Amino acid sequence: MSDKIRTTLRIEGSLLLVLAFSMVIPLLIAFFENETDCIRAFLLVIISCTILGLILFTSFNLSRYKIKSRDGFLIVSISWFIASLIGSLPFILSGSIPSFADAFFESCSGFTTTGSSILTDIEVLPRSILFWRSFTHWLGGMGIIVFITALLPVFGINGQLIANSETTGPTKSKMLAKFSDVSRSLYKIYLAMTLAEFILLKLGGLTWFDSAIHTFGTVGTGGLSSYNDSISHFNSSYVELVIAIFMLLAAINFGLYFTARKRGILSILKDEEARFYLLIITFVTAVIAFYNWAFDGFVQIGEKLLNAFFQVVSIITTTGYMTDDFDAWPTFSRMMILCLFFIGGCSSSTGGGVKAVRVLVALKLVRRGISLKLHPNRIAPVTLNDRELGSDVTINISNFIFTYLTIIFAGALLLSINGYDFITNFTTSISCIGNIGPGFNLTGPTMNYAFFSDFSKYICSFLMITGRLELFTVLTLFSKYYWNSDKVS
Amino acid sequence: MSDKIRTTLRIEGSLLLVLAFSMVIPLLIAFFENETDCIRAFLLVIISCTILGLILFTSFNLSRYKIKSRDGFLIVSISWFIASLIGSLPFILSGSIPSFADAFFESCSGFTTTGSSILTDIEVLPRSILFWRSFTHWLGGMGIIVFITALLPVFGINGQLIANSETTGPTKSKMLAKFSDVSRSLYKIYLAMTLAEFILLKLGGLTWFDSAIHTFGTVGTGGLSSYNDSISHFNSSYVELVIAIFMLLAAINFGLYFTARKRGILSILKDEEARFYLLIITFVTAVIAFYNWAFDGFVQIGEKLLNAFFQVVSIITTTGYMTDDFDAWPTFSRMMILCLFFIGGCSSSTGGGVKAVRVLVALKLVRRGISLKLHPNRIAPVTLNDRELGSDVTINISNFIFTYLTIIFAGALLLSINGYDFITNFTTSISCIGNIGPGFNLTGPTMNYAFFSDFSKYICSFLMITGRLELFTVLTLFSKYYWNSDKVS
Repeated sequence: MSDKIRTTLRIEGSLLLVLAFSMVIPLLIAFFENETDCIRAFLLVIISCTILGLILFTSFNLSRYKIKSRDGFLIVSISWFIASLIGSLPFILSGSIPSFADAFFESCSGFTTTGSSILTDIEVLPRSILFWRSFTHWLGGMGIIVFITALLPVFGINGQLIANSETTGPTKSKMLAKFSDVSRSLYKIYLAMTLAEFILLKLGGLTWFDSAIHTFGTVGTGGLSSYNDSISHFNSSYVELVIAIFMLLAAINFGLYFTARKRGILSILKDEEARFYLLIITFVTAVIAFYNWAFDGFVQIGEKLLNAFFQVVSIITTTGYMTDDFDAWPTFSRMMILCLFFIGGCSSSTGGGVKAVRVLVALKLVRRGISLKLHPNRIAPVTLNDRELGSDVTINISNFIFTYLTIIFAGALLLSINGYDFITNFTTSISCIGNIGPGFNLTGPTMNYAFFSDFSKYICSFLMITGRLELFTVLTLFSKYYWNSDKVS
Repeated sequence: MSDKIRTTLRIEGSLLLVLAFSMVIPLLIAFFENETDCIRAFLLVIISCTILGLILFTSFNLSRYKIKSRDGFLIVSISWFIASLIGSLPFILSGSIPSFADAFFESCSGFTTTGSSILTDIEVLPRSILFWRSFTHWLGGMGIIVFITALLPVFGINGQLIANSETTGPTKSKMLAKFSDVSRSLYKIYLAMTLAEFILLKLGGLTWFDSAIHTFGTVGTGGLSSYNDSISHFNSSYVELVIAIFMLLAAINFGLYFTARKRGILSILKDEEARFYLLIITFVTAVIAFYNWAFDGFVQIGEKLLNAFFQVVSIITTTGYMTDDFDAWPTFSRMMILCLFFIGGCSSSTGGGVKAVRVLVALKLVRRGISLKLHPNRIAPVTLNDRELGSDVTINISNFIFTYLTIIFAGALLLSINGYDFITNFTTSISCIGNIGPGFNLTGPTMNYAFFSDFSKYICSFLMITGRLELFTVLTLFSKYYWNSDKVS
């Protein structure tokens, strides 16, 4: 057995231990709520994962094998698959979601922070299951491997190379400090954000349980709720505003919060991606609010504004919470929302999608294209934050966007085998790869994914993981070069 | 008055003369058919254009001013606008299409070889008008300026720099010979193709008139017909096959036919773009034919094959003729057709769209993106026809595709102001910019553009011209740098 496989198995062992450990809270809830089936289910999974995890972790002592970035692709892809698999077991074993395809989809949707559901009635689920379902958002939000390296330095794995495979955004910042320190610092911000929203929601009159569930769904930019009508259930502008603001914050580059601690909150605006992201939110909110307001005969401007703001933030951050059915808005407003489906949050945040910075650079390429036609011999560099982007970065971004679009088409094509309309097929594909949650038409904000065939559900699950890991981590595994060891340089 | 403006006016003068001259055939048809209104209309336009054209042409003797490529953008954009404008006059003056927005749309759709129509009943139009409508396809197919420089060397204009603004494809071949010689050679091929199809259609039992109309629509990859039900009117497999093959031929790089005259017809297959284009046609035809055949219970394989072949070729070449309503096919087949909406013909052909070569390079970029993740330090050049593409070419292609997508979104957004569904808005935008003709849903193959508001019709017309001139020729005119003479290098 090669060192590479031993290392992989040890890391997967630690993943199993972490998953077992994180199921302790839902287990306690199950005890407290007297949900017998769930107690049995969680206990069974916790015990099996602990035993298997300990065997894998202790049998394979960490060798001197230095993990290469290509090993990271496999380790991370397998980890996300295993997490989704283990995460689905409580659903199946408790009888809450008996079908494997459904349970896997739901777990996948949780960990990847997509937030789409195959459940037609969420509210009948046991509370421990509801909690676990939303807790996966929180675990997946910052990345599973980042979670392991951050919380359990005892594993002694240099997580940087692996974690790069699940960190988002085109330019990974050079992290000079030890990686587990950095991820611990990121988690401190994540925890602070979680705590702050939890307290604010509690103050807004929500129960402890509802506050927790919706905090997980917000800071992980997930979108799963414990209610069928999502956030509109609470019928409270305060709650909507709190959730909207925390969605917005969770999809800003977490690195900027480091800087902000030293240089003040306004230093965030010095980042071009954050400015672009906030500008889009402001502009699209204003346009939609005005249009919907005018469309409905100029009444209730306050409500229109809040609804527009909430939905715009919910979609651009790829959360997917709902206070108003945007698929029932006038076409122009729906089109504006659809455009947001192609943007996503900032890099190094919990938000998914293409990422604001890539869209920004693509638009700069368009502008440069025009300028190059006028002045073919002038050197027109593309800049970001006043620094020139190397052609390797712009080419990487172009590659990413083409690949993203290719996968969207492929996904929609595969979904179309089961029929349904274009809009459903396309927006579902975009929504899954961008980890958004709702689409339009049959998968619109008030709908769910229950009607899909098992085949389509697996396609969606694959799209969610591929999108969460920013395409290439998964795609490289399908390349013949990956498996051909002769070609390893 | 600057030399630049004098030169521009002289060229527009020659354009008016060419337009007047090309209206002589429809005028003769109007005489022959005794269409009084049309005789008056054509005579009026011919006389006014000749007088105005002669004034402009003779007043502004060609100065020593050397046309720069940036002047070409303005000259070509204006020429296409003027051609569409003058082309619409016979429609208006004869009373066939009284509304200006409608007539302009129809003329624009003709010259840009889009082939969409605002007419609900084509067959009631006078024959001279029908002829003119289709003849604009033939004139626009190879480019209006190319037409002028090819046929009228007396104008003495070095057309190369201007014509580059309307030639299609990312890599303009270095033309060593005098440009008007090259464009004359291109026109010889175009004429040969026109003549061959005309004879073959005539042999298939069509009238002289129908043969001419449908030949123009085919070799220009336009798509306007003289019948409401397009090519299915003839109900003849022979006619369908002839038209399908000539559509296919018209969207292959015309430069390859030069080579083929020396090295044989198979030399075309040595071109990577042509191979890619033919491969897509073969593959998609096979998949759709099989799927539709299986969907309908495995009957009439021959008919399914011919219909699939015809529609695939009609869409990828951006012609838009119809023998079968593809919008009534099963979803999967419709999705395959929709994918073709994003491809288009080969460069330097009469076909529109993104162009096969750009899609090919984009897919190669995707493949390279995966390979780069595995071997970050390996140099992985993108090649075309075994030659390495410079990073400037790949960046240009990325720019083009991003710009294309941006305009599609902008177009769909503007169309959505009048409501209608997503599919109609998006596919209409894609269809107009790609000069295809039909879209899906409300603009599907059996529908027309009559229901659109004037505003939407102008948007469509703008998209058609912008797409025909490959975006940047028109877009640069909206750049502040274009009009700021200080910045001219």
